[in-house]
Amino acid sequence: MKNSILFDHGRTARIGLPEAVFCQGKSDEAMADLLSRFPKGSGHPILFTRLSAAQFDLVSDDVKLGYDYHPLSGTAFGDTMEPKSSGKVVIVSAGTADGPVAWEASRTLTYLGIENHIFEDCGVAGLWRLTERLDDINSADAVIVVAGLDAALLSVMGGLTSSPLFGVPTSVGYGVAEHGKAALSSMLTSCAPGVGILNIDNGYGAACAAARIINRLER
Amino acid sequence: MKNSILFDHGRTARIGLPEAVFCQGKSDEAMADLLSRFPKGSGHPILFTRLSAAQFDLVSDDVKLGYDYHPLSGTAFGDTMEPKSSGKVVIVSAGTADGPVAWEASRTLTYLGIENHIFEDCGVAGLWRLTERLDDINSADAVIVVAGLDAALLSVMGGLTSSPLFGVPTSVGYGVAEHGKAALSSMLTSCAPGVGILNIDNGYGAACAAARIINRLER
Amino acid sequence: MKNSILFDHGRTARIGLPEAVFCQGKSDEAMADLLSRFPKGSGHPILFTRLSAAQFDLVSDDVKLGYDYHPLSGTAFGDTMEPKSSGKVVIVSAGTADGPVAWEASRTLTYLGIENHIFEDCGVAGLWRLTERLDDINSADAVIVVAGLDAALLSVMGGLTSSPLFGVPTSVGYGVAEHGKAALSSMLTSCAPGVGILNIDNGYGAACAAARIINRLER
Amino acid sequence: MKNSILFDHGRTARIGLPEAVFCQGKSDEAMADLLSRFPKGSGHPILFTRLSAAQFDLVSDDVKLGYDYHPLSGTAFGDTMEPKSSGKVVIVSAGTADGPVAWEASRTLTYLGIENHIFEDCGVAGLWRLTERLDDINSADAVIVVAGLDAALLSVMGGLTSSPLFGVPTSVGYGVAEHGKAALSSMLTSCAPGVGILNIDNGYGAACAAARIINRLER
Amino acid sequence: MKNSILFDHGRTARIGLPEAVFCQGKSDEAMADLLSRFPKGSGHPILFTRLSAAQFDLVSDDVKLGYDYHPLSGTAFGDTMEPKSSGKVVIVSAGTADGPVAWEASRTLTYLGIENHIFEDCGVAGLWRLTERLDDINSADAVIVVAGLDAALLSVMGGLTSSPLFGVPTSVGYGVAEHGKAALSSMLTSCAPGVGILNIDNGYGAACAAARIINRLER
Amino acid sequence: MKNSILFDHGRTARIGLPEAVFCQGKSDEAMADLLSRFPKGSGHPILFTRLSAAQFDLVSDDVKLGYDYHPLSGTAFGDTMEPKSSGKVVIVSAGTADGPVAWEASRTLTYLGIENHIFEDCGVAGLWRLTERLDDINSADAVIVVAGLDAALLSVMGGLTSSPLFGVPTSVGYGVAEHGKAALSSMLTSCAPGVGILNIDNGYGAACAAARIINRLER
Amino acid sequence: MKNSILFDHGRTARIGLPEAVFCQGKSDEAMADLLSRFPKGSGHPILFTRLSAAQFDLVSDDVKLGYDYHPLSGTAFGDTMEPKSSGKVVIVSAGTADGPVAWEASRTLTYLGIENHIFEDCGVAGLWRLTERLDDINSADAVIVVAGLDAALLSVMGGLTSSPLFGVPTSVGYGVAEHGKAALSSMLTSCAPGVGILNIDNGYGAACAAARIINRLER
Amino acid sequence: MKNSILFDHGRTARIGLPEAVFCQGKSDEAMADLLSRFPKGSGHPILFTRLSAAQFDLVSDDVKLGYDYHPLSGTAFGDTMEPKSSGKVVIVSAGTADGPVAWEASRTLTYLGIENHIFEDCGVAGLWRLTERLDDINSADAVIVVAGLDAALLSVMGGLTSSPLFGVPTSVGYGVAEHGKAALSSMLTSCAPGVGILNIDNGYGAACAAARIINRLER
Repeated sequence: MKNSILFDHGRTARIGLPEAVFCQGKSDEAMADLLSRFPKGSGHPILFTRLSAAQFDLVSDDVKLGYDYHPLSGTAFGDTMEPKSSGKVVIVSAGTADGPVAWEASRTLTYLGIENHIFEDCGVAGLWRLTERLDDINSADAVIVVAGLDAALLSVMGGLTSSPLFGVPTSVGYGVAEHGKAALSSMLTSCAPGVGILNIDNGYGAACAAARIINRLER
Repeated sequence: MKNSILFDHGRTARIGLPEAVFCQGKSDEAMADLLSRFPKGSGHPILFTRLSAAQFDLVSDDVKLGYDYHPLSGTAFGDTMEPKSSGKVVIVSAGTADGPVAWEASRTLTYLGIENHIFEDCGVAGLWRLTERLDDINSADAVIVVAGLDAALLSVMGGLTSSPLFGVPTSVGYGVAEHGKAALSSMLTSCAPGVGILNIDNGYGAACAAARIINRLER
Repeated sequence: MKNSILFDHGRTARIGLPEAVFCQGKSDEAMADLLSRFPKGSGHPILFTRLSAAQFDLVSDDVKLGYDYHPLSGTAFGDTMEPKSSGKVVIVSAGTADGPVAWEASRTLTYLGIENHIFEDCGVAGLWRLTERLDDINSADAVIVVAGLDAALLSVMGGLTSSPLFGVPTSVGYGVAEHGKAALSSMLTSCAPGVGILNIDNGYGAACAAARIINRLER
Repeated sequence: MKNSILFDHGRTARIGLPEAVFCQGKSDEAMADLLSRFPKGSGHPILFTRLSAAQFDLVSDDVKLGYDYHPLSGTAFGDTMEPKSSGKVVIVSAGTADGPVAWEASRTLTYLGIENHIFEDCGVAGLWRLTERLDDINSADAVIVVAGLDAALLSVMGGLTSSPLFGVPTSVGYGVAEHGKAALSSMLTSCAPGVGILNIDNGYGAACAAARIINRLER
Repeated sequence: MKNSILFDHGRTARIGLPEAVFCQGKSDEAMADLLSRFPKGSGHPILFTRLSAAQFDLVSDDVKLGYDYHPLSGTAFGDTMEPKSSGKVVIVSAGTADGPVAWEASRTLTYLGIENHIFEDCGVAGLWRLTERLDDINSADAVIVVAGLDAALLSVMGGLTSSPLFGVPTSVGYGVAEHGKAALSSMLTSCAPGVGILNIDNGYGAACAAARIINRLER
Repeated sequence: MKNSILFDHGRTARIGLPEAVFCQGKSDEAMADLLSRFPKGSGHPILFTRLSAAQFDLVSDDVKLGYDYHPLSGTAFGDTMEPKSSGKVVIVSAGTADGPVAWEASRTLTYLGIENHIFEDCGVAGLWRLTERLDDINSADAVIVVAGLDAALLSVMGGLTSSPLFGVPTSVGYGVAEHGKAALSSMLTSCAPGVGILNIDNGYGAACAAARIINRLER
Repeated sequence: MKNSILFDHGRTARIGLPEAVFCQGKSDEAMADLLSRFPKGSGHPILFTRLSAAQFDLVSDDVKLGYDYHPLSGTAFGDTMEPKSSGKVVIVSAGTADGPVAWEASRTLTYLGIENHIFEDCGVAGLWRLTERLDDINSADAVIVVAGLDAALLSVMGGLTSSPLFGVPTSVGYGVAEHGKAALSSMLTSCAPGVGILNIDNGYGAACAAARIINRLER
Repeated sequence: MKNSILFDHGRTARIGLPEAVFCQGKSDEAMADLLSRFPKGSGHPILFTRLSAAQFDLVSDDVKLGYDYHPLSGTAFGDTMEPKSSGKVVIVSAGTADGPVAWEASRTLTYLGIENHIFEDCGVAGLWRLTERLDDINSADAVIVVAGLDAALLSVMGGLTSSPLFGVPTSVGYGVAEHGKAALSSMLTSCAPGVGILNIDNGYGAACAAARIINRLER
């Protein structure tokens, strides 16, 4: 009984996006093995997502030094993809609790070689926090909105920008909000037209969706 | 088998709000009987809600003339309650499809003798529609926000007004939104603090909630 | 009590997408009035969605002649937006029952002046129907996948194309599938990375999402 | 990567309610930093909610002495807002298990400078517990009902008082009740007219809703 | 292809309750055939439930005369079971809209030969309507509470009577309440101990549950 | 801030059932205090339910000796109610995993002074386990069926016995079954007529429902 | 805009099952066209499912004569597949209301050339109806159980037969049962091991599942 | 109070499948007792499922040596059933995270004496992984597909093989996917005809379903 991952090495060629390793739920043995194989300089840029601090602690300090690990977002990588010559993505989040998801998106983009900026704490309870940053936001080739609870930020944003726009609901909150379903249904029914929605907490997916656009722009 | 309604005549004395007749689902016989009893001049101000045009057509033209019937909101009354000497309620709705609910709230307040104003089409996709009316809104003793889909209007409104605030989700939309559950969960998780939420499409209830405040101001 | 729509005329300037009229649930009076105002030559390109044949029959033959009405998708427009000089969108659907949604997307793009092609009956039960058309699909600047039931087409498509990709779940089917929730959750959890999902049956929204990309390419 | 909170200092001026810090899920570093900044005498009255004992233990005894911490409700504050010259809120709860939520409401009001009283164990299984206290309850400017399970207390209360009334469902119970959804739907469908409902366990929100009324009375 | 019902004639002997015919959804042919077979005097007491007026109209006037048909509850029977020598059941309902379900329970008991009384309009918004009838209610061998919306009546009733108690949620209301799920979850989590709950709108089932007790008392 | 329970001492007189203490979620202080007050000989028969071993360990060995504690069901009592002179309840469960709930029912009945028997492992996958015990079951004045998963046992039992019958769904299983909702909906839709259903895992409630019948038989 | 079906003619070769036409929701034009092409003698055996009487009436009497149409199940076919030389399937249903689904399974098998028998009214409320037919049932190569409500029949059946077994939940009933979800979750959690479940009302799918086994036996 | 399991020793004779012990949730005492009774050589082949490493550690090393324990799948057995002389089952899984479920199926088949093969990492994002193995898969007498998230693998597989086919949704993923409900509804609505679905994570059940077919082939 072996349980090694069968990598899909042709994926980048086919769809422009390399495979990533989703670490949550993986056994300690599997994680230690995988981390030992792809440090900086290995020539194989691999993104680890949902990598807990406890999992990262499984490897030796030497191996750790080969990675750029970001605890809040639970992401790590050694080598990165080639930097893109053009294209920029902006990530806007509603509150500090949305940080892990917003940063997962940011870090995935960085790994993919795409310039990106993150604006946090732009919840609509204080609209000035959003309008002050509108010019920066509108200069982006794709905008990712990360918000939990009622995710009202997405509708407001969608009425203010012409950029391609993606929404990531987060599992922030309690009661009716708790698992992100309120934010998800809110985003899917947003009155702002033309917004593609991702699964709850899927910052990685939103970054990939934005990357598909940047890839197209480069074509 | 008789099926007459047992009116709770002491309710106004106890809680400051008279009983209303919810017409949806009532038999034609019951409706014809009830409408014949409370036309203008009867001395018994009774509010009929969810009264369809077909139901209102059950009575003779004479009886009809004794009522102020409003088809969009499905409301009718003969006599009204005593006009209040002070207090004002503002109703803000997101789109035209929210009309039946917004007007049910407005009409209930009119019946209760409370001054009220209604501002429609203030959805957040065009924020200017809301900000242009902000002074009028902020002068109210209570504000009712009526919105479907993602109901983002409530959060934006809640960050702009200090008035007592109520939210009524509406069953507008399709797919994830269809029965108003997206709007309801969105409102209950709104990041705007201190908002009381009503059942889906319950414009009547929101008017009663505002009336409790006006009653208190008059005490 | 008037109930006229308060158009957001600045929307195109702000976000590159004009307002559309969602007809389902609107009163006959409102529909007759709106249709009479925007026939071909009016100089106001307006898109009507979810316009039933019964609603379209409300206007005179003269007015009808001023519209390009498409019954399957329930869409109509008189004037269209300026044709874009470049950019192409491909719509792929799983079965004939997905037609109304796929064509709503196609028609919206046509109205927006964007070249588009539609490939129907590409469900994964017969993979050859998809692979035969893969080159055509991959030449697009954005791909829209329309599918109900288990929506497996989206994951297969997502593993075969590098284009920006959107998924529209449809309310096709019965039992567990009936209202499109199975297709929606299937699409949101697709193993294909970087796909933005729209509300159930929201072909219009997917077209707008693709248009945001075409707009960006033109910038 | 910094993760500091961007405070909305204009909120009190705009809506009469200061921002609060929701502590659940915040990192230890963030909590220690925040608590160190706003003890009694700092001149910045800040309310901490969902502050666990473990989180409060993160700071030194010196800092702790600067706070009024209430473990059951998980609330803490140093300075409070200016006491209001008038207005009174009553909180009625169904059972002892509703204590954390009822006290979160009470403590928030105290922090906001509003007189408040709390009556616990008034569940309808023993109606005498409610009727004995009815005069006290009816003297309030706003009443908050806190109840879990079937939340029948709200309907009974709503038929006995004319005061503005808010309901907070609690996540008490197991099986069908467990996460408070039974109580929430029960409250939203209460036969008592004019009650604004808050999210499950949101005692803080109910206090803010009552405060909006008290603020209005003071105007 | 025949589709006749295979009656379980031994059921009364085994469990003390005869089979009933649930008419909703049955074909016109099947209904006409069944009704023609069991009129008064046939010697086969059969209860028809959910029998619409349209279905009852399928048979000749002669056959109709052989039945005691009750339109509100949708019940009909020709012969009845032997009257029980003792035992009494009381049915208490919250509002007039609960009538069809309350009367289905009453009519089933009458068919089973069990004395029963029905008290309508006892909703808790006016507690006096319940307390006035408490002695009558407490004299019963079983009490059936029929209520929709938040079904608060069940908890109040459960704290006032020592009789065996059953709750039937009804599909009355709209929004959160619409299909009776709010009432069902409310009843299942009632703080009143020892109440058996039936499926939504299942007045027939509650009558059978009460009949099992009366049968036991007679043993 | 005190948090003592306000006992409803008149409950037994009103409804024939004393109050019980639901221990889950209560603070250690509250539990230690309550347990110290009602050991055997105190003259106050109190039932503790959902009392974990950890909670019971909070008190001294002396106090422990004053209780009959049953870990599987999480129940404890010192004094019991007066034994009833007649009446018998049978509890039938589907599998060993239903033990905690079946025994909670049994223990509650024992505390209430009611004779009871328990038959475990009677799941319908092996019908012989049920039919072998049918005579014993049919001699009872009330039968309680405890089952999780698809709870098919209730329908089979309901077709074999004429006794008053109650169903308690349990939270046994995983996947679709996990929280007992499958068992609950299964029981509520059982084709066996006249069965009262309790909340998931509510063995205590079923015992109280049966006790209401025994109380009636004694009257 | 053409909307013709793109038949997957290679399906039978690949998976042993021909494509079928699901008629519900198809346009009248499409149905008239399809029916006109595949009558008996056309050499193309095609199965039509969910074909309403109104849809079948769209074609001329001549075309009708070319089909074996079965209204209860909504199925029609002209030519059938080659009869299989061996293999037998038994269909067992709980009540008459399950007829349309049970017969859809039976008719599909007949069309596929597979011997099949149907036993109706075998609900567990009267176990004798099942046990009397057990030998016949056990002689089958595959057994299909069709049941709604709590679907207890599946668990009982699964404990009595060693044959390959499939369960089809039906959308029979009201309240908690209404759309077949209770039956579905009940079947998925059945304590009987080794049962494959189909979508609600999917008699066609169960027949195909059984056909896969018969095909295997013939290999 | 004893709590021993009442084994259904006749089950193998009746349905061809022996009882298994589901260990999750069983007490340590029960597990230690059960494991001590059925090691290799005991003559009683018993399968333990959901047996955690912690539970297996409860017994002495001696007893451990008597078992073939497989930690990933949580299965253990001492003796196995008689090997079948023919028949083969193939298990195909989408990703490494599906391993515990896929191996539970494999191990159950091994215990039942049935030849089986397992192909992991065949998710449709890289179709080549599936097509490379198609001949091996098609040689099986039954195929089990194990997949989480959108479970698209099942539909693709169902369009490529004629073998009897079963689907097991897994609880892999997060957000919309988390508890396996997305995969379950996806599988139930699969466009591939004739697939029997099991409960979420029920690899054991799928193996039993396949075994029913192998048993039939041997008859």
